[in-house]
Amino acid sequence: QQIWKYQHNDHGSIFADLSEDEYQKVRDYMWAQKSLGISRSATAKPTENFIFLIDLVLPKKADALRYLDENVSKPAREASVVVFYGSNGYLKEYVVGPLGGVLTHRDVTKEKYNLAEFKITARPVTIGEYMQLFEFIYRQVFAPLEGILKESFDYSAEKALSLFEGMPRGVNSGDRETWMSFFRDMSGMYIHPVGFEVLINHQSVNSSQWSLQKLLYNGQYFDTIEELKNSYKNDNVTKIVYKKIPNYASLKPRSKPIGIGPQQYYPQGKRFSVKDNQVMYMDWAFAFGLSSLTGMRVFDIKFRGERIAYELSVQEAMSVYGSVTPGMMLTKFLDSSIGIGRFAHELVRGVDCPYGATYVDTYRYIDTNHTQRFRNSICVFEHDIGRPLRRHFSDFFHNKYGGLANSALVIRTITAIGNYDYMWDFIFYQSGSVEARVHATGYISSSYKIDGSLRFGHQVAENTLGNIHTHFINFKVDLDILGVKNVFQTKDMTYEEVELPWKPERKAKVPRLVENQLSTEQEAALRYGQPMPRYLHVASDRTNRWGHQRSYRIQVVSFAGEHLPESEPEERSMSWARYKVAITKHKDEEQTSSSLYSQNDIWSPAVDFSKFIADNESIVNEDLVAWVTAGFLHIPHAEDIPNTVSVGNGGGVILRPHNYFDEDPSIHSPDGVYFEPG
Amino acid sequence: QQIWKYQHNDHGSIFADLSEDEYQKVRDYMWAQKSLGISRSATAKPTENFIFLIDLVLPKKADALRYLDENVSKPAREASVVVFYGSNGYLKEYVVGPLGGVLTHRDVTKEKYNLAEFKITARPVTIGEYMQLFEFIYRQVFAPLEGILKESFDYSAEKALSLFEGMPRGVNSGDRETWMSFFRDMSGMYIHPVGFEVLINHQSVNSSQWSLQKLLYNGQYFDTIEELKNSYKNDNVTKIVYKKIPNYASLKPRSKPIGIGPQQYYPQGKRFSVKDNQVMYMDWAFAFGLSSLTGMRVFDIKFRGERIAYELSVQEAMSVYGSVTPGMMLTKFLDSSIGIGRFAHELVRGVDCPYGATYVDTYRYIDTNHTQRFRNSICVFEHDIGRPLRRHFSDFFHNKYGGLANSALVIRTITAIGNYDYMWDFIFYQSGSVEARVHATGYISSSYKIDGSLRFGHQVAENTLGNIHTHFINFKVDLDILGVKNVFQTKDMTYEEVELPWKPERKAKVPRLVENQLSTEQEAALRYGQPMPRYLHVASDRTNRWGHQRSYRIQVVSFAGEHLPESEPEERSMSWARYKVAITKHKDEEQTSSSLYSQNDIWSPAVDFSKFIADNESIVNEDLVAWVTAGFLHIPHAEDIPNTVSVGNGGGVILRPHNYFDEDPSIHSPDGVYFEPG
Ligand SMILES: [Ca+2]
Ligand SMILES: [Ca+2]
Ligand SMILES: [Ca+2]
Ligand SMILES: [Ca+2]
Ligand SMILES: [Cu+2]
Ligand SMILES: [Cu+2]
Repeated sequence: QQIWKYQHNDHGSIFADLSEDEYQKVRDYMWAQKSLGISRSATAKPTENFIFLIDLVLPKKADALRYLDENVSKPAREASVVVFYGSNGYLKEYVVGPLGGVLTHRDVTKEKYNLAEFKITARPVTIGEYMQLFEFIYRQVFAPLEGILKESFDYSAEKALSLFEGMPRGVNSGDRETWMSFFRDMSGMYIHPVGFEVLINHQSVNSSQWSLQKLLYNGQYFDTIEELKNSYKNDNVTKIVYKKIPNYASLKPRSKPIGIGPQQYYPQGKRFSVKDNQVMYMDWAFAFGLSSLTGMRVFDIKFRGERIAYELSVQEAMSVYGSVTPGMMLTKFLDSSIGIGRFAHELVRGVDCPYGATYVDTYRYIDTNHTQRFRNSICVFEHDIGRPLRRHFSDFFHNKYGGLANSALVIRTITAIGNYDYMWDFIFYQSGSVEARVHATGYISSSYKIDGSLRFGHQVAENTLGNIHTHFINFKVDLDILGVKNVFQTKDMTYEEVELPWKPERKAKVPRLVENQLSTEQEAALRYGQPMPRYLHVASDRTNRWGHQRSYRIQVVSFAGEHLPESEPEERSMSWARYKVAITKHKDEEQTSSSLYSQNDIWSPAVDFSKFIADNESIVNEDLVAWVTAGFLHIPHAEDIPNTVSVGNGGGVILRPHNYFDEDPSIHSPDGVYFEPG
Repeated sequence: QQIWKYQHNDHGSIFADLSEDEYQKVRDYMWAQKSLGISRSATAKPTENFIFLIDLVLPKKADALRYLDENVSKPAREASVVVFYGSNGYLKEYVVGPLGGVLTHRDVTKEKYNLAEFKITARPVTIGEYMQLFEFIYRQVFAPLEGILKESFDYSAEKALSLFEGMPRGVNSGDRETWMSFFRDMSGMYIHPVGFEVLINHQSVNSSQWSLQKLLYNGQYFDTIEELKNSYKNDNVTKIVYKKIPNYASLKPRSKPIGIGPQQYYPQGKRFSVKDNQVMYMDWAFAFGLSSLTGMRVFDIKFRGERIAYELSVQEAMSVYGSVTPGMMLTKFLDSSIGIGRFAHELVRGVDCPYGATYVDTYRYIDTNHTQRFRNSICVFEHDIGRPLRRHFSDFFHNKYGGLANSALVIRTITAIGNYDYMWDFIFYQSGSVEARVHATGYISSSYKIDGSLRFGHQVAENTLGNIHTHFINFKVDLDILGVKNVFQTKDMTYEEVELPWKPERKAKVPRLVENQLSTEQEAALRYGQPMPRYLHVASDRTNRWGHQRSYRIQVVSFAGEHLPESEPEERSMSWARYKVAITKHKDEEQTSSSLYSQNDIWSPAVDFSKFIADNESIVNEDLVAWVTAGFLHIPHAEDIPNTVSVGNGGGVILRPHNYFDEDPSIHSPDGVYFEPG
């Protein structure tokens, strides 16, 4: 039944995530370095040394291209290892390799970040630290307040409160103090805030030095447990009285199933092939991977044997919240610091992807002591988009019909980062276009509604404010148009007044094409709030049959606005969001626009994207990378309960051939339909 | 197998297009009015009196609502009849009715347009006039130039040239002179320009008074046939030498089929019902129609029995072209003057719509002398969008999964207006959202490439320039949120500096909700080029369970820019395109934003949308209508050959509940999926 014959090759392997075995060998090697003193516990304490992350080191692009294009000198595979040195008070990154050979390790912190080491406070909170935090909260908050919590929130040792953290953790570099908001311990807790928040200073790696800084009860601040207790006893605080309510956050269907909806059906079987991490589909071939930190990425995207893009990848998912309550007041999530790919779990057949999709397992090593397998966490399927890719019916003169259904290949993962679920799609069309798309769903974040809350959102449930926030997504788009030496062009329309040649006394304003080639990184950093040419192109100096520079157009689909005033000290960690599109000269050292450390040391960013363009390099005949920002404003409303729906809540970028070919390549599709009167 | 039981009612009938029989009765009645002297020929000459159009008169809204909401006094059906009085030199519109009763007619030109009659030159070109134009061209152009045309273009009487018209037809009101560009007479002729254009004055209804004004041969202008002949003979013009080329415009597939792509499959049969012009789908019910002029429209859109919108309809499709050659230099197409719905032809199963869709015939009477049936010209189907409508997987704490596949109902027509095919979709989602979407495909318009052409586009084929142009689409969105008395609100985010309550020495900029209610039509006319709040709402003063005004949000998806400088005399006929969104107080007299006469008397528009808001009426607690403009700039490129693809070439509007409900209605979908660890 398989009628599509694809010849896979080994090219994808250089981009493949580490295997189960590779993770383990690297871990064992690091563990064996006695001088590093690394704990083997999955829940090492902050005072201990701990391997937080093992992940693939992407090959240097020049090395990769030599292998891909000349089939020689396959780059050695290497692993990146992030170690938290609790005992020394710093963090370091190593490269360990060659995988499959005799391993050695090398501290790359200095060469990657121009720092001898990271402050220990720059690290994400590990499961080990959370365990101590939970214990701290139990001992220092829940236990002494048991009576109040019972009355207010029906708290008991068996029915504790769940928590949700605000980020960043403080207001200055080196801070590690976190507002924890409490929620009813039930399914969908994110929208069951109880009106109680505490500020915990956990700056020290030694939890015995942690302290409770502040408490917020029903909108009122207290410095100490005692202060709250006294106010409560003396009725100097408005008491919250527990009320049992049905769980409006439940995702249980309220109606019985009465019939299955439309399904994708593949009468001829799968028309694509997935082998290891390489996908082939009609004229397309590419490799894929899932970074624990940044998430989905595809490499070496070829259409009809020609590389269109070297890399197309998610870089960051950022949200800025507003609130009158402290837990969400300063919150700016930078998900890649928590790990976007980290939360790619099993996809549900028939909902997350079609039943007939190909499902791929992924393996990760992050905040653990062993390789974790995530079954069926990527899916690949062909989809009937449901609208013709092209069609024309000729009414006049030569009656005929020609058309092509829009069957496209989708590769998807869905990452459930706490409350939110992002659905990440890369879509490959028969017309030579590729689309990167993200949609948001899952639970919104919420706060207990108090006086003043409504300036920061709408009430969406019992006592619950859905906080206003943004979604900003950054994509890296490394197009390579007929090689790596490209230029960046813009095209738009303007009105020009002309005399009518056949009626010179008469003038008219006529639309005219305006083309520009931008020369430097700063010219090509297209800020939000400034007019942007409608067409953006990465072009080769080689021309198509009609004499035009072969190019791909970058079409951004976004509803985003201002990300954060640049005056804010947290802004530099998200400076990529200043630009709808920014073009840089490719550098292996500028692999990502964000970093693992951006969330927790947001004030002195390990990666400040704006520095990529600060040197204002030439972008003429260089290897160009486009950094694309898409997103939208989310003003939560009642219909976000229980979950945000995907319709209208998305954004992305379409890469479209524009004079790259001599004609639409889809005319060669075997799916084409044509008829004329017999 | 049918497990969905729907109870249809007669409500759709008041919006139903005229039936075969109704058209015929109205025609016969008009023909019988001897005093009107109407020709019975399908190809009446411009000197004759001719029924150009018979179409439904929409009921007055108040009358319709009385019937829909109280089930009393069903409004009488009436027909609109447009008569071209060639013998009198004007145009008139009549209302004929009541259909099914004793017909009478009433001249409504004055009451509708505040004009006793239209200038005869405001009329579209009929088939009758085209026949005379073709004859004129044959006699006055082809015959005298036969030799030149043969040498240059391989012209022969059997192998004539095809033509494509520029519009508007002149530069002043009353003009009717048309640049006709010639093309090879082959399939996909629109992209085979030969380099020959003529300007014909056909202002008079009497073709004997028509004249050839100008000729353009290979970029050179001539006043007369003789002048061109002499220049040609004396080699004072650069001759075009005919070259046979393969037909790159052919839509014939270049590859053999080798396997069918994914198909929609309905394991339980259709889950929706279409009866006459009423559709029911899960919680949705609506009526639909297809106006010969403006195209697709839906009415009385109800979700769970509550009317969300009274009307959602296409109003106009406009394109402005640029060129160095005269045929396209001034061209501004206003498709509703030609007839958008008019060109809704049979949809092709498996390409235009799924095989299993429900197909509906439509009937029209336009530029003919009999009712025409267009088989299967509307399709209705449920579609698996291929991405969850919502889902959440809980990693932490309460492990569980809840989700819902995005199965939505699509109603579609495709209109092939000459070269271009617009695909019109209205999509109904289970979350209570409705989307109106248009995508463009088909052939671009083109010109023969001469010196200076490249300032107006790219070469896309042999000697062929794809002319730069815009696509602007206007939608009418008459939301009725819990009745017709609504307000228009905007919501957005701004940064506000606050002191941190727990650290008053520290300030931070925090996102805050900004809400506004706009009071007048001019405040709510949101122009292109001005900042637009990200959220636009039509709201009731009634509140949902959480105290927020129940509303629907209008989310525009558009890549459009400036439509035309307002200084241009043609601009008032497309003044709707000034605004991304404009809100007006509903009036039955302001049924459409464009008109049948806008194209051919573009300089003194029968409908100037900007006048709807010139009186700056209050929009507080009024029946509001939103007029939404979507579109994109099209810089044609080689991949537009042979046809433009739909990916990225679209726009539309999503209507989304925003505090309309108390929670997401899709939680009640019978398609919901939920599981937790057993
Ligand atoms: Ca640089
Ligand atoms: Ca590049
Ligand atoms: Ca008005
Ligand atoms: Ca209304
Ligand atoms: Cu959100
Ligand atoms: Cu176009």
